[in-house]
Amino acid sequence: MADTWLPSLKTATPQEGFELATKLARVGVKATQPSAEIRDKLRPAYDHDSAQLIAASQVIAIHFQTVAAANNYWRD
Amino acid sequence: MADTWLPSLKTATPQEGFELATKLARVGVKATQPSAEIRDKLRPAYDHDSAQLIAASQVIAIHFQTVAAANNYWRD
Amino acid sequence: MADTWLPSLKTATPQEGFELATKLARVGVKATQPSAEIRDKLRPAYDHDSAQLIAASQVIAIHFQTVAAANNYWRD
Amino acid sequence: MADTWLPSLKTATPQEGFELATKLARVGVKATQPSAEIRDKLRPAYDHDSAQLIAASQVIAIHFQTVAAANNYWRD
Amino acid sequence: MADTWLPSLKTATPQEGFELATKLARVGVKATQPSAEIRDKLRPAYDHDSAQLIAASQVIAIHFQTVAAANNYWRD
Amino acid sequence: MADTWLPSLKTATPQEGFELATKLARVGVKATQPSAEIRDKLRPAYDHDSAQLIAASQVIAIHFQTVAAANNYWRD
Repeated sequence: MADTWLPSLKTATPQEGFELATKLARVGVKATQPSAEIRDKLRPAYDHDSAQLIAASQVIAIHFQTVAAANNYWRD
Repeated sequence: MADTWLPSLKTATPQEGFELATKLARVGVKATQPSAEIRDKLRPAYDHDSAQLIAASQVIAIHFQTVAAANNYWRD
Repeated sequence: MADTWLPSLKTATPQEGFELATKLARVGVKATQPSAEIRDKLRPAYDHDSAQLIAASQVIAIHFQTVAAANNYWRD
Repeated sequence: MADTWLPSLKTATPQEGFELATKLARVGVKATQPSAEIRDKLRPAYDHDSAQLIAASQVIAIHFQTVAAANNYWRD
Repeated sequence: MADTWLPSLKTATPQEGFELATKLARVGVKATQPSAEIRDKLRPAYDHDSAQLIAASQVIAIHFQTVAAANNYWRD
Repeated sequence: MADTWLPSLKTATPQEGFELATKLARVGVKATQPSAEIRDKLRPAYDHDSAQLIAASQVIAIHFQTVAAANNYWRD
């Protein structure tokens, strides 16, 4: 993770903020399991398991709180 | 997700805010499992499983925090 | 859910706020499983399962954060 | 729950705030399973299960956030 | 828990704040299972189970949010 | 943990903040299971288990909220 992948939490719209939250949730998985090969093998296990899909949605929700606050809820 | 589905976090009432939170929770699942067909197949697994219903309710609760804050708790 | 069931997050007391949080947790389940019949069938599964009771208590706790903030912690 | 059991979120000390958070976590369980008899029967199941003890500790942690904020972190 | 074990949420450094968060997570378990003997028996079950270690780390994370906010993030 | 490992929550960029959040999640595990040997043995169990990877990502997300707030969302 030497590249810059997170220069800012600012996004133009709430929707882009949600996409950023989704990205952060994925990078969090990557931080624990850096191997793309292993992550790919695990994919069918979780994307066909509703409990894990709900859990993934929860991680996105937590990050979306952060991104939304960083953007002052796109109120300005 | 090229369409605009989240133009704003503003809602007229707390109840609409809760509906938006519910939508955000669903989009979070969709972000991980984009296939509507697979999601439909998984539905009976989770909507008849109280533990997963509680987990889904939790994701809504987290998003509702964000939406409520964005609307200044509809205090104004 | 065409009826107005959430006109405001304001409550007179913290205790009423806790009751509102409990209601929000239930509506979150209802949003995912709208059938009252199925929810009633699931009840014995979760209300005799301590892990699910703790999970339900957690959803209430998250909503109580929101309701408490909306009421400025009933400080005024 | 017709009695007043939560007149205020104010506590004199952080420690009393933690005790209040513990109480709120328990009332959350009670809100879903009102029968004291059934809750007593479930007790050995969860208080000998470390995963459930950790889950219970998490609910307390969430409520403690609320109580701490309500007390302005006992800074004053 | 008649002793004073939580006089303040103030700590000199973020690291001490993290240690306090760890303590709060443990006290939360103790609040539900007061017997030190039983807790000791449960220890091998959870400290060799990565899922429970992650869950414990999550409770610490939630308390650390509280402690960090109480200390104004040690910015002053 | 006598060494100073957390002198500050300040980071230069959001990305470094995310790395700090990842570190905090790991230290939280370490606080419960101090043995590096046991943690190493547990690694294959969780880094090949998508549910645990998602759970680990969630702990990172919670810490990232704290670190982001501490840095005023890197807005300045």
